[in-house]
Amino acid sequence: MALLETGKHSVLGSVNPDLAIERQTASFSVEKLTAWLDGGAEHTRMRRAVVDAIECDPVFSRENQYFESQNERYEAAVRKAVHLQKKMQDMGWTVNGPEYKYIYRAVSGDIAFLLHRIFMRSISVLGSDKQVAKWIPLATQYQLIGSYAQTELGHGTYLQGLETTAVFDITTQEFILNTPKISAMKWWPGDMGRSATHSLVFGQLYIHGKCYGVHPFIVQIRSLQDHSLCPGIIAGDIGPKMNFEHTDNGYLMLQNVRIPRENMLNKFCEVQPDGTYVRQGSQQINYFTMTTVRVSIIADEVIIPLMKACTIAIRYSVVRRQSKLKPGEQEAKILDYQTQQEKLLPQLAAAYAFHFIYNYLQELFDKGYREIQTKNFSTLPEVSCSSSGFKAMITQNCTSAVEICLRACGGHGYSSLSGLPSLYTKILGSCIYEGENTILLLQTARFLIKCFMATSAGQPVPPSVTYLAAVKSRKCPAKNKLDFLSPDIYTEAYQHVAVRLISSTAAKLQDLMQSGVKKHDAWNQCTVQLAQAAKAHCHYITVKNFAETVEKLETKAGIQKIMKHLCDLFALHGIFSNAGAFLHDGYISGAQMDMVTASYLDLLPVIRKDAVPLVDAFDFTDKSLNSALGSYDGQVYQRLYEWAQKSPTNKQMSPAYEKYLKPLLHNMLSKL
Amino acid sequence: MALLETGKHSVLGSVNPDLAIERQTASFSVEKLTAWLDGGAEHTRMRRAVVDAIECDPVFSRENQYFESQNERYEAAVRKAVHLQKKMQDMGWTVNGPEYKYIYRAVSGDIAFLLHRIFMRSISVLGSDKQVAKWIPLATQYQLIGSYAQTELGHGTYLQGLETTAVFDITTQEFILNTPKISAMKWWPGDMGRSATHSLVFGQLYIHGKCYGVHPFIVQIRSLQDHSLCPGIIAGDIGPKMNFEHTDNGYLMLQNVRIPRENMLNKFCEVQPDGTYVRQGSQQINYFTMTTVRVSIIADEVIIPLMKACTIAIRYSVVRRQSKLKPGEQEAKILDYQTQQEKLLPQLAAAYAFHFIYNYLQELFDKGYREIQTKNFSTLPEVSCSSSGFKAMITQNCTSAVEICLRACGGHGYSSLSGLPSLYTKILGSCIYEGENTILLLQTARFLIKCFMATSAGQPVPPSVTYLAAVKSRKCPAKNKLDFLSPDIYTEAYQHVAVRLISSTAAKLQDLMQSGVKKHDAWNQCTVQLAQAAKAHCHYITVKNFAETVEKLETKAGIQKIMKHLCDLFALHGIFSNAGAFLHDGYISGAQMDMVTASYLDLLPVIRKDAVPLVDAFDFTDKSLNSALGSYDGQVYQRLYEWAQKSPTNKQMSPAYEKYLKPLLHNMLSKL
Repeated sequence: MALLETGKHSVLGSVNPDLAIERQTASFSVEKLTAWLDGGAEHTRMRRAVVDAIECDPVFSRENQYFESQNERYEAAVRKAVHLQKKMQDMGWTVNGPEYKYIYRAVSGDIAFLLHRIFMRSISVLGSDKQVAKWIPLATQYQLIGSYAQTELGHGTYLQGLETTAVFDITTQEFILNTPKISAMKWWPGDMGRSATHSLVFGQLYIHGKCYGVHPFIVQIRSLQDHSLCPGIIAGDIGPKMNFEHTDNGYLMLQNVRIPRENMLNKFCEVQPDGTYVRQGSQQINYFTMTTVRVSIIADEVIIPLMKACTIAIRYSVVRRQSKLKPGEQEAKILDYQTQQEKLLPQLAAAYAFHFIYNYLQELFDKGYREIQTKNFSTLPEVSCSSSGFKAMITQNCTSAVEICLRACGGHGYSSLSGLPSLYTKILGSCIYEGENTILLLQTARFLIKCFMATSAGQPVPPSVTYLAAVKSRKCPAKNKLDFLSPDIYTEAYQHVAVRLISSTAAKLQDLMQSGVKKHDAWNQCTVQLAQAAKAHCHYITVKNFAETVEKLETKAGIQKIMKHLCDLFALHGIFSNAGAFLHDGYISGAQMDMVTASYLDLLPVIRKDAVPLVDAFDFTDKSLNSALGSYDGQVYQRLYEWAQKSPTNKQMSPAYEKYLKPLLHNMLSKL
Repeated sequence: MALLETGKHSVLGSVNPDLAIERQTASFSVEKLTAWLDGGAEHTRMRRAVVDAIECDPVFSRENQYFESQNERYEAAVRKAVHLQKKMQDMGWTVNGPEYKYIYRAVSGDIAFLLHRIFMRSISVLGSDKQVAKWIPLATQYQLIGSYAQTELGHGTYLQGLETTAVFDITTQEFILNTPKISAMKWWPGDMGRSATHSLVFGQLYIHGKCYGVHPFIVQIRSLQDHSLCPGIIAGDIGPKMNFEHTDNGYLMLQNVRIPRENMLNKFCEVQPDGTYVRQGSQQINYFTMTTVRVSIIADEVIIPLMKACTIAIRYSVVRRQSKLKPGEQEAKILDYQTQQEKLLPQLAAAYAFHFIYNYLQELFDKGYREIQTKNFSTLPEVSCSSSGFKAMITQNCTSAVEICLRACGGHGYSSLSGLPSLYTKILGSCIYEGENTILLLQTARFLIKCFMATSAGQPVPPSVTYLAAVKSRKCPAKNKLDFLSPDIYTEAYQHVAVRLISSTAAKLQDLMQSGVKKHDAWNQCTVQLAQAAKAHCHYITVKNFAETVEKLETKAGIQKIMKHLCDLFALHGIFSNAGAFLHDGYISGAQMDMVTASYLDLLPVIRKDAVPLVDAFDFTDKSLNSALGSYDGQVYQRLYEWAQKSPTNKQMSPAYEKYLKPLLHNMLSKL
């Protein structure tokens, strides 16, 4: 039996010819593109060294991940986190070193104690020198495991509404922490359900009956000796979630828990022994911490998963053959169908676009950080609002994109073994955590409206929004479909739409208020359009940044050409799928929209030729993809079959047979 | 402690006041709406009786479902299926009786042996009278458990490509079945991985070396005595999937498996003892079986889950309060924010729209079925293409809608305990199984193009597409935003867009072919636009059908008014979010689009007032919703807390503590 022989002598490792041929015709050097994406060949080398070191260590294996229960995933995540400490010492890697981001990539985020890092970062930023000196060494050496307890059952993004209380007891010089009602229970904090010994708890500070707002307090929640819950603490795991099985997201109730006065982080606000409340310095820096986290998740939790999903779906789409494109020929690779190209290639272009906009954000952020260190807070609003809007736009787009990749793989995409279900269910969370997307978009919109008003009044605005003042033509000058391959043409179209949506919403707001509607009602009645305007702004900046990135590439001609195609595709796909915004005031006419469509569809077969090299350049190892469909060798059917056999559902005959099936079948037999 | 008291005296069951108040102001009778949706109060009574009988039986409990492993889910599904047989006998329910659809609703599809039913249905349709007489009683009495093995690792929707072989051996009067290569392995069939004793296997029939195409064969795969695999059979479970943990989707390899000649289903095609192949009757009926399944899943697997998701998200959105809408007031219910209304209310309107279009399809289908029984196959193309297109449109829209509901519940929506993750991961499958959506849309498009050509040539076409011939005005006549609340205005706009997309794509096809592009290439180059055209057709019919349904309601005034609002919302949301299609040729102008937007946004607060009664009318029990967020009493926080405590992650201290955390913490302590 040919089949059985196949089983004995696995074909895994020898590249499927349908995939191999795709790699022979690349229009550019994959290795050069990889190095450019990494920011230089030396970074590629470091990344590969780190990934190798992690992947050759069996403790970090993700081989059986799709078969594991929530308890098993948690245990594995803790095992990996503890082992990683040792490994980092052995390898000479440090948490602040250049290797860290590669470590995170290598373990695919599937590790415990990530909130311990946020706990430490928060103390570093919000704690006094004395507090930093006390807690950071303890945390660094794992004499405690920290968590970060902000979100409550009843409150997420709206921090002012938190209900946990911290009352200052002047007689004992302690804070008394309480969870006054069920909605005040801390809920969701990672590392808290089962691991943490300490938590940074956010609660409303009361002194002499007066509320001073939300402050952070260090609270011990479990014994350092036996891990039992401390007196007054009720804590546990919040149970199953759509993903993040490896994380012990927890709940926490506090009942008259007393902590010393020194446990309130007091770099910016202090309660003195006599109960005097002193605020010092600027609290704006707090927002900067949230900005840091938002920017970092864009790369680690959003763009990398999209790149993985594209790699899996595109490799599979040149191995999978289905139906005939031409009568009499063999079945066609599904990537040769226009509809499949139209599903996947815009997502591939988006992965590149978002990688570049992440670089832009990181630069904006670094610049802002340098200025803040010199006590210059002027760039904070721009940095903070950019991070909000882009976080919302990118997480939303990448989530949809991963879903498209999953569905484009048909039934096999729906199997956990494809890797796509877990990528999807995890990336979906990014739309919700670290700020719910709608709220973030409205923050950005508020900033944009303010800037629009300022610029209308002739006042200066931050560089990224000066375009709001520019007067541009009211008609797109494109004459034929090739004109739409000009970055100037499409970038200006995006700019026009952003300006139109921001200005028309500003006008609607003013009209409403002038007609007597109160400010907050008027705002609420414009929020659907404000969110659209914020998205249009982010989309415009992303297109502009992509075009500029391509332009700067002029010395790397082979890469530049394909990047230009991807940039065009990203831009035209946006116009094609958002046509109403461009047609609305006639900036683009119906006839021009037909040109956009034609140019857009023409690009698909062009980019399709390089599709596999373009995902190969992301340089994911098979272990990191952990996908039966996406491996480098393209042996999808053999791998699905071999992996399925390892499933616990095949380990033994189900008790269901003895209990239910046998009596059913035999009962019926005996009746005959 | 108020909190502890809350824990002791659970508030579950007493309705949250924020939810209670929503029910006091309904503009219509919820009970009357429910009865109307059910098709009469007598149906409502029957449904409730069935649901009660199932839910009061502990065997059918879904209480711990979110904590169960794939093995446990499978075992529970078998337990329920076996118990259901008994229950049905006890209750006097039959598989073809009116109760069956309510049973399915009551168990939420979470039951084994669904493919056993498809096995039986296929034999009934494709088997000779003799075969029906032999196999159906055996299957009905569970002397065997059947499965339906069509899909292979390498082939899904393209049936002609199946690679399993069935060679007729004239000497023994047997068929010899084989899986000649790995991609030919049967993969995905439900009930096959661990339960089935028999399977209906589809393979290429060979007689004297000649291939006669795909035919169905009854093959025994497991022993009736001890359930061991039969000789030549390799079978097992395909492992974890995004959902359907309760189903043992399986794989099957056949190695020289011999079955008697009589085991090929031969109502339409027969192999005679001498090897003569005889085709008799029409095979078109085969497509009708697929149509049956497609129509039935629209209700059971797609619309009901969307109704559940709306119920959960809308109830939660009036209990959840977050941030302030007006300064100085208490925090607002999140459903009072325009953005939240704009997320959820269009999904609610869609649930109603799709419920009505399902009734329309069911009627079309029943009519077609009656005609087929009189050997009149003329309506088959219309019925078959409608079921394809609507299956694709409805599954796609409902999947997006459930995702929107999930995300609209923020972090708590992401918890499995909300019920939303499992609704989402399950409904997503409906876009893939029973025909991949893109392929289905292109089937519909092919039908539409054909009809368009026919009507252009003055030939008759089926009733649902006669509109393709109608000449209508080229400009929307609306003068102000209220005009857009006229069903004539918006239905005509949808019709205009459908005609434009179908005719322009037909023209593009012809242009390409006239310029020398071959037919199949031209078709492939138009598929993105063809799929759009098919969607536009289905969207138009859905809007038209909704408007007609509302119109027919004239005697039930209270209900008609709110249904009219929902119909308007459904139609205007479609124009708002698809603006480009309506603006493209100027049928709707930019100024008119602003009117659409205004009317659309104006409708949101109107429908919001009745949002809770509108989901209450779907009449789901708490057990059926199985959601901590969506229960009738709205005690979301208490329920989340109580349910989380039942999670296996809280049952014991994780081994991770002893193995990894304790050594880590103590090692560090000892170093001090």
